[in-house]
Amino acid sequence: MPIISHKAKAMPSSPIRKLVPFAEAAKKRGVKIYHLNIGQPDIETPESFLNAVKGWDVKVLEYSHSAGNESYRKKLCNYYKEYNINVDSNDIIITCGGSEAISIAMMTCFNPGDEIIIPEPFYANYNGFGCAANVVIKPIISSIESGFALPLIEEFEKVITPKTKGIMICNPGNPTGYLYTKTELEELKVLVKKHDLFLLSDEVYREFCYDGKEYISVMQLEGIENNVILLDSISKRYSACGARVGAMITKNKDVMASALKFAQARLSPPSYGQVGAEAALDTPKSYFEAVKTEYIARRDYVIEALNKIPGVFCPKPSGAFYCIARLPIDDADKFCQWLLESFSHKSQTVMLAPATGFYSTPGAGKNEVRIAYVLKIEDLKNAVECLEEALKQYASQTS
Amino acid sequence: MPIISHKAKAMPSSPIRKLVPFAEAAKKRGVKIYHLNIGQPDIETPESFLNAVKGWDVKVLEYSHSAGNESYRKKLCNYYKEYNINVDSNDIIITCGGSEAISIAMMTCFNPGDEIIIPEPFYANYNGFGCAANVVIKPIISSIESGFALPLIEEFEKVITPKTKGIMICNPGNPTGYLYTKTELEELKVLVKKHDLFLLSDEVYREFCYDGKEYISVMQLEGIENNVILLDSISKRYSACGARVGAMITKNKDVMASALKFAQARLSPPSYGQVGAEAALDTPKSYFEAVKTEYIARRDYVIEALNKIPGVFCPKPSGAFYCIARLPIDDADKFCQWLLESFSHKSQTVMLAPATGFYSTPGAGKNEVRIAYVLKIEDLKNAVECLEEALKQYASQTS
Repeated sequence: MPIISHKAKAMPSSPIRKLVPFAEAAKKRGVKIYHLNIGQPDIETPESFLNAVKGWDVKVLEYSHSAGNESYRKKLCNYYKEYNINVDSNDIIITCGGSEAISIAMMTCFNPGDEIIIPEPFYANYNGFGCAANVVIKPIISSIESGFALPLIEEFEKVITPKTKGIMICNPGNPTGYLYTKTELEELKVLVKKHDLFLLSDEVYREFCYDGKEYISVMQLEGIENNVILLDSISKRYSACGARVGAMITKNKDVMASALKFAQARLSPPSYGQVGAEAALDTPKSYFEAVKTEYIARRDYVIEALNKIPGVFCPKPSGAFYCIARLPIDDADKFCQWLLESFSHKSQTVMLAPATGFYSTPGAGKNEVRIAYVLKIEDLKNAVECLEEALKQYASQTS
Repeated sequence: MPIISHKAKAMPSSPIRKLVPFAEAAKKRGVKIYHLNIGQPDIETPESFLNAVKGWDVKVLEYSHSAGNESYRKKLCNYYKEYNINVDSNDIIITCGGSEAISIAMMTCFNPGDEIIIPEPFYANYNGFGCAANVVIKPIISSIESGFALPLIEEFEKVITPKTKGIMICNPGNPTGYLYTKTELEELKVLVKKHDLFLLSDEVYREFCYDGKEYISVMQLEGIENNVILLDSISKRYSACGARVGAMITKNKDVMASALKFAQARLSPPSYGQVGAEAALDTPKSYFEAVKTEYIARRDYVIEALNKIPGVFCPKPSGAFYCIARLPIDDADKFCQWLLESFSHKSQTVMLAPATGFYSTPGAGKNEVRIAYVLKIEDLKNAVECLEEALKQYASQTS
C-alpha cells in the first residue's frame, strides 16, 4: 500500500471536529445542544441573492472567466469604493470562497519554508493552508487582557528572521472579534515596509463593526500597495457560506499575474454563487443595519452575561460575531468534551470551541473558549445558563 | 517590493491563453472565429439540474458537509454502480470541480520532489496542479500513429526511479479521445502493484464512449484498491462546467482521512452545484443517448473531413470530444497564431489549441493541434473548410 505524503500526515484537523462524535452522542441521548462553536450565521441570505439565482435563465452552465465574471468584478469595485478601497476589476480574482483566496495568495507569495507571522489566536484553518503551501506560521501572542489588540511591534521584530516573508492578520478578527485601530495598522505598515514583507489581510467581517468604530482596510495604507493582499469572502456578508464566493485582491501586478495562473489552472469559480453575489451588491443598507442591530444585541447580552459568571473574563469585541472567554477551568479541550459527554442542564448543553485550536503556541489558550454568538438571544440565554451551571458542576467535580 | 514565490514564477500559463489577444483582435476586425480550441460543450445542461437549483427553497445558504452533502454522495453510489464501480458514500469527497479533486489527491499522495508518470499528450492543467504540489511530472510519449494507445509498459519502467510515487491517466482521454482497453489497464495494474504506486485516473468523460467500446474504470481493477484514486467531475457529464462540482474517490482509508482534512480546511464544496448535480442523477438515459448521437456524428464528420485534407492525419478517437490532428506545418503555435492574426476565409477563421501545450517533452507535438468538436456540424463544416484553405495558404507562404 503506497504511503501518503508528509504534508497529508501533518495536515491539522479542525479542533472542533474532535468534539463532533460527542455532540452526536449527546443528541442521541436527547440532549439539546446550543451550538456556539461555529461561525455559521442563522441570518437569512438576502432575497436579492436567492432570487437572482432562481431567476437566472441559463441554458448551458458554462465556465466563467477564471478571474470571475467581469460584470461582477466591475460592480464589486463600487462596493469596495464605499469602504475607501480603490480597486480596478483587474485587481480582483474571484475565488471559491475566502479559503481559495488564502491558498492562492500563499502559493503565489511564499516559498516552501518561508515564514509568516500571525498574531494568535487566529482562524484555525490558516494552519491548514500554511501546511498545504509548506509555509511556516510563526505565532505571536495577542493577550486577552488587551482584548486581543495588535501585539507590540517589538514582538514582531523578535521573531523576524531572513526567512520571514509575510504577516497575516484578520480584521475584524476571527476568533477574537478585535478591530484593529488606525494606529495599529500604521505601525504594521512601517514594519511591513522596513522588511519588505507581504501583508495578507482577511477582512471578511467588515460588515460587522460595532460601536461606531472605524474599519480600516490594509488597502488604504499608503506606500505599501505592492505588499498588500486583501482576502475576502461573501460568506458572512450575505450569510451565503455555501455559495463559495470569495476574492483575492491586490495592486501588485506580479502577484496578480501569477495568481491568475493558479486561477486559470482550476478553470473558474462557481457560477451560481457569482450570479447571486453580483445581485446581492444591491442589497439595501437596511438589511445590514438590521443584521448589525441583531448582532450588537446578541454581543451585548453575551458579554455581560459571561462576565457576570464568577471566574469568567470576556473582553468586549468590536467586530465579527465571536468572542474569546477565559473560563475558570483547567483544560478547555477536556471541558468542551465534558460539556457534551457528561453534562446536561434541563436536558440541554452547549457546544463551544476550545481556544487551543486557535493558538499555535503549545499550551496557549488552555483556559479559553471561542463563542460564536450566532443564535437568537433567547437561545443565547439558555446557552449561558447552561455554561454557568456547567462551570459550577465542573469546579466541584475537579476540586 | 516583495518577490513572488518560485512556484508562482514556474507556474505554467495555459497554452491557449497566449492566443486570446489575437482572437480578440480578429473579432474586432469582424472575422468570425470557430472555437475548436476549448472543451466548453454547447450542449444544454439537463433541465433536472437547472430546475432543482431554481426550485431550491433555501433561506440560509449554509456550508455543506466538507465532503459534500451526504444525500448527494449516497445517490452518487448508485450512479457509479451502473458503471460497475462499487463505492460507499464515505469513499467520496465532493470537490470544487475536478480541478480540486486533482489538487487534493496530489497533495495527499505526493511529497515535494516525488515523480509521477503521465502518458503525453495530457491535459495541460496537470502541469499547473503538479507545479502547485511541487510534484515532478515525468511524461512518456504515446504516439499519434497508435491513436495514442497506452505506451508500452517498458517505457514506464524506463523512467521509474526511487522518486516515482504515482502514475496518472485520463480515460477516455483529453486531449486524445483515446479509450484504454481492458488489456492496457490490466498491464498498468501489474506495474502499479509491482512498484506500489498511486494510480490517479481522471475519468470525467465516461459518458462519452463510442462505437460500443467498453469503458473500464481503474476502480474495477482488483487487487490495487488501495493504490487507486478516481478523479471525477460533472462538468462534461451534465454540461455544467460552471457548477464546479467534482469528486475524489478512493477505497484507501488513509488517503481518504487525509484528503478530508484538506477538504475541511476549505470548508465545503459549492451548495448550488451539489443541489443541481444530485437532481441531475435522475437525468433520463435518453439525454445521454441524444448527446452521444450528436457527438458521434460530429466526430465522424470531423475525422473524415480532416483526413481528406492533404498532409493531415487524425486518428479516430473512441471517447471524449477531442482529437489530435497532425498537420503539414512547421510549428503549431505559430500556425494557430497565424490563423487568428493573418488569415481569414470568407471573413471566417478557426481557433485551434496547439498540441505543444499538451506535451511536456520539449519539441513534441510541434506539428499537432487539438480539436474539440464541440460545435454543430454546420459550424464544423465551415471550420474545416477554413482549416483546409489556411493550410494551402500557409504552405505557399512558408515554402
